Amino acid sequence: MKFCSQCGQPVTHRIPEGDNRLRFVCVHCETIHYQNPNIVAGCLPLWGDQVLLCRRAIEPRRGYWTLPGGFMENGETLEQAARRETDEEASARVTDLHLYTLFDLPHISQVHVFFRAQLTDLDFAAGTESLEVRLFREDEIPWSELAFKTVGRTLECYFADRRENHYPVRNETLAPLMAQPPKA
Amino acid sequence: MKFCSQCGQPVTHRIPEGDNRLRFVCVHCETIHYQNPNIVAGCLPLWGDQVLLCRRAIEPRRGYWTLPGGFMENGETLEQAARRETDEEASARVTDLHLYTLFDLPHISQVHVFFRAQLTDLDFAAGTESLEVRLFREDEIPWSELAFKTVGRTLECYFADRRENHYPVRNETLAPLMAQPPKA
Repeated sequence: MKFCSQCGQPVTHRIPEGDNRLRFVCVHCETIHYQNPNIVAGCLPLWGDQVLLCRRAIEPRRGYWTLPGGFMENGETLEQAARRETDEEASARVTDLHLYTLFDLPHISQVHVFFRAQLTDLDFAAGTESLEVRLFREDEIPWSELAFKTVGRTLECYFADRRENHYPVRNETLAPLMAQPPKA
Repeated sequence: MKFCSQCGQPVTHRIPEGDNRLRFVCVHCETIHYQNPNIVAGCLPLWGDQVLLCRRAIEPRRGYWTLPGGFMENGETLEQAARRETDEEASARVTDLHLYTLFDLPHISQVHVFFRAQLTDLDFAAGTESLEVRLFREDEIPWSELAFKTVGRTLECYFADRRENHYPVRNETLAPLMAQPPKA
């Protein structure tokens, strides 16, 4: 941020009075511009013993497989955002949504939220952001070609929970991949 | 938003190519300025059969009782935000946090998240944003003087769930208060 979105004058980066964090503050109109984490909402669409994944047509991670999901928009609920993204990326309709995984990603200031959901039919297709959309059984999941850590972790939780037939809501923090320690 | 935060030139409100929503777009550098929901995180601090509430020293809802909570900051996890707000508003330390309620408030583009938490001691005190902080048993809760609907609903859920000794994570949408129908 370089300029004030209210008056167009330059901003400085300082701690406002009564605050304890650096904020962008307008030198002219003194508006404080807060910046806060974004929410990504998505679905784990299920059909019998299969899950639906989308192969990304866009960066980042073009060509890798993901669950349908994306940035929540103003005016939406989490569930509406998850449904909309599933429709946009996989042209798929889902029902019976249940909150399932919440991941904190503090290094990129995001929270990712996935709902377990049932596909209502098999009339899905790649949306403009997907190269391909298909169903996978557990033994077919392309683990080494998943786009994001939150997608892999949601799938891991799901297959483990399915064996117990118990699906607790999970809140986990996912750190960036650590650098490997040097070999001895 | 009136001006581009990147280059200081005016923005227009239009649907960018390949999008389907109105966005603020810079007329000069063409930066698209996305606006997304904010997260409020807080705690339901417990001590035996009592819960901790704070009487607000600031608007909105000055003088009304609330659970400690506030806007999640960049670089935080949900749990860190809930702990920080509990420390700032009630000078209270909590442990054993469990994700509990998630409320969608689409009319104000916010998601409110509360954690059940145990106070570690009784050494709490009003922070600068609170007039007073105290513990309440269920029959002492000032139901008509609560600051926010998400606070009242979290307390309702808690006292109901406590009777069952079962605390499912809940995701609910809270609409604004409906206008009362005219009396017959």
